[in-house]
Amino acid sequence: MAWERKISRTVRVRNEQTIGQLARLLSVISEAGGGLGDIHLLTETSRHVVRDIVIYADSLEQMENILEAIRAIPGSKVMDVRDEVLELHQKGKIAVRARYPVDSLATLRRVYTPGVAEVCLKIARDPSLARLYTSTSHMVAIVTDGTAVLGLGDIGPLAGMPVMEGKAMLMETLVGLSGVPILLDTRDPDRIVETVAAIAPTFAAIQLEDISAPRCFDIEERLQQRLDIPVMHDDQHGTAVVTTAALMVASRQTGVYLSVAKIGQIGLGAAGFATARMLMRLTGNPVWGADLNPEALKRLEKAGGRPSTLREIMANCDIVIATTGAAGLIQPEMVRRGQIILALSNPNPEIDPETALAQGALFAADGKSVNNLLGFPGIFRGAVDAHAPRITHEMLLAAAQTIANLTPPGELVPNPLDKKVHLAVARAVAQKAIDQGLARAEYVPYVEE
Amino acid sequence: MAWERKISRTVRVRNEQTIGQLARLLSVISEAGGGLGDIHLLTETSRHVVRDIVIYADSLEQMENILEAIRAIPGSKVMDVRDEVLELHQKGKIAVRARYPVDSLATLRRVYTPGVAEVCLKIARDPSLARLYTSTSHMVAIVTDGTAVLGLGDIGPLAGMPVMEGKAMLMETLVGLSGVPILLDTRDPDRIVETVAAIAPTFAAIQLEDISAPRCFDIEERLQQRLDIPVMHDDQHGTAVVTTAALMVASRQTGVYLSVAKIGQIGLGAAGFATARMLMRLTGNPVWGADLNPEALKRLEKAGGRPSTLREIMANCDIVIATTGAAGLIQPEMVRRGQIILALSNPNPEIDPETALAQGALFAADGKSVNNLLGFPGIFRGAVDAHAPRITHEMLLAAAQTIANLTPPGELVPNPLDKKVHLAVARAVAQKAIDQGLARAEYVPYVEE
Repeated sequence: MAWERKISRTVRVRNEQTIGQLARLLSVISEAGGGLGDIHLLTETSRHVVRDIVIYADSLEQMENILEAIRAIPGSKVMDVRDEVLELHQKGKIAVRARYPVDSLATLRRVYTPGVAEVCLKIARDPSLARLYTSTSHMVAIVTDGTAVLGLGDIGPLAGMPVMEGKAMLMETLVGLSGVPILLDTRDPDRIVETVAAIAPTFAAIQLEDISAPRCFDIEERLQQRLDIPVMHDDQHGTAVVTTAALMVASRQTGVYLSVAKIGQIGLGAAGFATARMLMRLTGNPVWGADLNPEALKRLEKAGGRPSTLREIMANCDIVIATTGAAGLIQPEMVRRGQIILALSNPNPEIDPETALAQGALFAADGKSVNNLLGFPGIFRGAVDAHAPRITHEMLLAAAQTIANLTPPGELVPNPLDKKVHLAVARAVAQKAIDQGLARAEYVPYVEE
Repeated sequence: MAWERKISRTVRVRNEQTIGQLARLLSVISEAGGGLGDIHLLTETSRHVVRDIVIYADSLEQMENILEAIRAIPGSKVMDVRDEVLELHQKGKIAVRARYPVDSLATLRRVYTPGVAEVCLKIARDPSLARLYTSTSHMVAIVTDGTAVLGLGDIGPLAGMPVMEGKAMLMETLVGLSGVPILLDTRDPDRIVETVAAIAPTFAAIQLEDISAPRCFDIEERLQQRLDIPVMHDDQHGTAVVTTAALMVASRQTGVYLSVAKIGQIGLGAAGFATARMLMRLTGNPVWGADLNPEALKRLEKAGGRPSTLREIMANCDIVIATTGAAGLIQPEMVRRGQIILALSNPNPEIDPETALAQGALFAADGKSVNNLLGFPGIFRGAVDAHAPRITHEMLLAAAQTIANLTPPGELVPNPLDKKVHLAVARAVAQKAIDQGLARAEYVPYVEE
């Protein structure tokens, strides 16, 4: 779809009143490789028509070419080029707000001194009351060192902030949690662990985000051992949950059952390794794995997997998942008849789903269809509401099962903005925590305020 | 005033329809030492009247006695006792919110993947753009280890959270900053400095809060040396600014000029030491200081002050400021005719202002009239908007002068909820940063959205 492309601009164009001028303009945009979004008519006189046209492109260079092509059309004049994405990010996408107005001295005295003292003393006497009377009950740290941001790699924590804010705004929008970005001025695992542990009393849970492998495995494990609140690296488990859900749906649609299928995982970074582990625990069978890094293969073997190669996996496996970041890695001729292929690298997959299907794959999808946004909000909401000390494999599996169950017929996953799905995931995760004896507080399901 | 007392309850009482029953009830409350707030009539029948009565007391014990006294009144029945302060604190007082709705897939693609990638790359290329396109531009950490919370002392960071949230909600309400409480699971100064420095890229400024003296002096100084964003310990400088403003107003009202007056500071903790320092830099004269801790006296001497004693200060100084936490420390007979006395310990001052005035003081006030809430919001907003690397003495003084200038006739300080005052403080602080050559960005004054 047009709006899945990376770059968008809103271009204001003044056309002369000539029959066919808009059509000519749109042809030029299409011929230059541009996609079209909304077109708004702004003003019209007997001589001119002014419109805002949203144009999509794959790169800045392509966008420049498109704009140049428009400028060359006789009778069309580019009046303005606006970057609405950038406008949306201005001053950031989140804010810390008071939950109710402080508009009188009487309220001030209740929320601030002297009234607040009584609340402080209550918590000093019984720290468990902090869950009732402070925002620690809904604050989730979103921690990054900026070493593996999206597909962009090591761009540093500050450049990763727009992503952390995106996660925070979606947490609030979808499940009412308060995501607090924490940008780390260190990439030393020891110092990351020390820092996060030192600020942990502030939060109900810790979401690790965009931290590069293999450091992420160790950092997550050490923090979870040290803290009694959930610590989850989203790039691992959020992605594994949504990928597993998508596989459950694909399995249902194709009749290729996960429990008997040979499953191969190409790319054993954060997402790939976590997905392999989840599928092994789900099926009880080893997952075949390929990675250029021998350490990653050893890690897989230690976790019960079967070290392999790209070619071997493509030749033998019924289900292939690829998370390598290498666009076009899977050659069309490698595809085996009847395979299920999830080529998840963004923005460009290891093999185009249509190509894979043309080569005889039974089912194929790319990363755009497997949005990890479906995972983390509900997983954290459920774990936090049950006051679980950690997020277990079983809780993650309950999330995956719920996402699969709520996927509409013909789709691979549900609409990621469907709040009902996120609340169902939260309830399933909390219920599993209760079943596992991990809930440390009476469970009150979250309902939107 | 009644609502300055520490404890309040909303008591639902059903009275029999008897002439004078409410008056009898209110007399009983007053005789038991209770104060009265709002009285709401809820229902009335031919036999009964039900009312909600807000009652204030100084302690839980006193409140219990008041309730017992009410229960003993014939014809009155206590139906319910509610703690509205506690209700206001339920689930905390702040939340992280999206600044606009994410209600369509098109918006999702702009704020999250794939649209966000372009913003990340822009910042990776030019980190100064983070101020334009992320929330780091308005996020202020409110950091505590919980060692000196209000007058309550070392109650720990979690029990201090209601105070941190109070600061955060007031920052948002008054100047639109996003205050982010950070509770530290350590009281080791080295680890505090390391931790705050490690998370500093997230924030436009660091507010240290309720960290005990003398650790607070060292921690603030080391962090400010290390970071190029403002670091301010509010208990020191926020309090010093508002106290100085109050003295400027008292000086104007009494004709006792700060530049020629002998000034004494009793209690050289965080607030007292910072106030003494600020007044020395303002007047160029040494401030007399008293403290039970010889280290505190040495620190004052090193800063140019004159170590002294309580008795000596009371006997010699024209202006006396007390911040000891010791209620009733100043005996009435110590007061000298014509003195200005600010006895600032909360909730109970070193000497009651009325007693001091009766003993011949020219001017007297207690801590309730010198609310440090008047300082920190505008100081941080101004420093952040000017993108100053630190908050200088001159910027603090500009804040004090602005607060004094905007104090209505007959008052000691302005209404702390008057946003115009906070915005004026912000503008004065930013202007001073510009004048001192410290502004690192074009100054755009904050206006409420």
